[in-house]
Amino acid sequence: MTAAGTFIPAFSQSQEQAGAGIPARGLAVYEEKGGFKPYEFSRHAVGDNDILIEILYAGICHSDLHHVFGDWGKEEYPMVPGHEIAGRVVQVGRNVKKFKVGDMAGVGCMVNSCGTCAECADGKEQYCRDVVLTYHDHDQFHGGEVTQGGYSDKIVVTEKFAARIPDGAQLEKVAPLLCAGITTYSPLHYAGVGKGDKVGVAGFGGLGHMAVQYAVALGAEVTVFDITEDKRADAGKMGAVHYVNVNNPEELKGLDGTLDFILSTIPASYDPAMYLKMLKRDGQLGIVGLPAFANMPRLSVSSLVFQGNRKVFGSQIGGMKETQEMLDYSVKNNIYPQVEVIRAEGKAVDEAYGNVADGKVRFRYVIDMKTLK
Amino acid sequence: MTAAGTFIPAFSQSQEQAGAGIPARGLAVYEEKGGFKPYEFSRHAVGDNDILIEILYAGICHSDLHHVFGDWGKEEYPMVPGHEIAGRVVQVGRNVKKFKVGDMAGVGCMVNSCGTCAECADGKEQYCRDVVLTYHDHDQFHGGEVTQGGYSDKIVVTEKFAARIPDGAQLEKVAPLLCAGITTYSPLHYAGVGKGDKVGVAGFGGLGHMAVQYAVALGAEVTVFDITEDKRADAGKMGAVHYVNVNNPEELKGLDGTLDFILSTIPASYDPAMYLKMLKRDGQLGIVGLPAFANMPRLSVSSLVFQGNRKVFGSQIGGMKETQEMLDYSVKNNIYPQVEVIRAEGKAVDEAYGNVADGKVRFRYVIDMKTLK
Repeated sequence: MTAAGTFIPAFSQSQEQAGAGIPARGLAVYEEKGGFKPYEFSRHAVGDNDILIEILYAGICHSDLHHVFGDWGKEEYPMVPGHEIAGRVVQVGRNVKKFKVGDMAGVGCMVNSCGTCAECADGKEQYCRDVVLTYHDHDQFHGGEVTQGGYSDKIVVTEKFAARIPDGAQLEKVAPLLCAGITTYSPLHYAGVGKGDKVGVAGFGGLGHMAVQYAVALGAEVTVFDITEDKRADAGKMGAVHYVNVNNPEELKGLDGTLDFILSTIPASYDPAMYLKMLKRDGQLGIVGLPAFANMPRLSVSSLVFQGNRKVFGSQIGGMKETQEMLDYSVKNNIYPQVEVIRAEGKAVDEAYGNVADGKVRFRYVIDMKTLK
Repeated sequence: MTAAGTFIPAFSQSQEQAGAGIPARGLAVYEEKGGFKPYEFSRHAVGDNDILIEILYAGICHSDLHHVFGDWGKEEYPMVPGHEIAGRVVQVGRNVKKFKVGDMAGVGCMVNSCGTCAECADGKEQYCRDVVLTYHDHDQFHGGEVTQGGYSDKIVVTEKFAARIPDGAQLEKVAPLLCAGITTYSPLHYAGVGKGDKVGVAGFGGLGHMAVQYAVALGAEVTVFDITEDKRADAGKMGAVHYVNVNNPEELKGLDGTLDFILSTIPASYDPAMYLKMLKRDGQLGIVGLPAFANMPRLSVSSLVFQGNRKVFGSQIGGMKETQEMLDYSVKNNIYPQVEVIRAEGKAVDEAYGNVADGKVRFRYVIDMKTLK
């Protein structure tokens, strides 16, 4: 994961990548906070280990907003966001084994990694120091090209970083699994959540509503924490047993020391110590939500010591092996995001961004990329 | 653990505690940052489950300084600090089974707890909401009396909160085990440190030098982190394989992602994210050092997410069962603090405080309470 602009090594393309680029179209912002407009660009040629995917659906993740709004530092423009991608394989390189033309494939937050470090060897490519993000990154394995994301008509990716979408999947709902799904599935398993565990899900948005479904499927008793009344009924429908509006102090009473695991998916400012206190001894607080740098929540050493023997960990998406496992599991168990499909038009995406920023989305916008003009 | 002055319930003393108090003498500060002077006060009578200990040695913990200096909030005066206590049992209540007159006994950071909550039931009395600290607390089980610590000639404590000091122990070195010992022993075991693990100990003072010895005894390869050159040789003598002066950036190079467990004993401001980065995936950062509130280090949510799948936890001392286990283990394996014994005189203690504050102590001052006049 390299900050934009910091990592453009002198790199000679391998012969397999030396072919001409592939024309692509997408929706991009041309400046910080800018509205979405059509953008024509180029994907690198299909190498021996690559597949070309015709993108059918692309999810809108809250982190796309953070990038477009410059919340996480300076970005490069034009930028085509999107790291929740579902589509159809339309071309395969000569060494490709996992896919054939016509298969359905998904791409998430990363498109390459070094392949040789300890993280890659363990299938945790997301923690590889040379991981290449799907967009707003420079791809050192392709001459440092700027990566562009899924709000586009096609993408070329090495087969390792594409997941097989199982037959019979609800395709428009699969796209968000590639980020919102794996980002919540992974820490629930990392924390060892199981039957009867009391699990809290803080933040009930795109990530949170996936976390609730996975936790319920694991047999946990789920408590949802959010800042609105609007989603109380939804939480119940998804299997949560309790819903806490944290803006109502009365509802927080009696919760200290009661939960085994809490997953924070909150993308805004909050007090992580409040959740730490809700853990039983030996309980764990997993954090996946990443607010804007300017409002980044911090946990004091004193909170950790006073709530001793409670563990806190962060988590980033999941490796490719676990991503495939999550996809297979989700489709088999009918666990999907609740989506609203929109057209691939600048105005529609701008409007969707406004609603995500205002917490009005329920729960994930997915762009139908076939409607791109 | 109740903040001074907040918790003085209306409480009727039980009959067993209704006897007259026992005159005691100690060294107290009479105001914030004040020098130590003689102080005469009263210990509660020896109840049926209590023992009266003639205090022989009392360790000076860095947290004593934090209290005397008001670093952790307002305190009540006069205050007799001291929660590292070793002495001889001189009287026992009628129900006492663990001790007889003449036995050696130790008292650490707490002197009572509710005895009925889940924490107490699990032998983790330090996390009981009603735990009574050895000093700077109000003892709700004795009418809300202000507790006074080990810089004194005697203490009355319920037998449960006294540990047996094994025969043959080096008594003047045992006192600091009751805090510095258990505070480092417990998180090393909680983290599951074992043979061959790469362990970092951040902060090489009273706590840190105990952590090094326990980690070495567990078979770990230990790296010490401190801010001075003065203690480099000491670290090697105690079995550490590496010593890193964190004020020298060169020495920090190459350490990211290399350690299985780090215990931070640092009592001053520092950047916990630096240590989080040094962990391997699935590694853990244990925190026991508690700096002044004004300089409390904080860990950002972004650090946790970027260093995903690394866990952070705080830890407070240890329960009474584990404290006894630690004492037995330490004496059996000849693991002791390196101590400097001083006289129980105001001037000597004031001077020792100055040296602790300046990081000049190597590694623990112990007051010989028999020299109290």
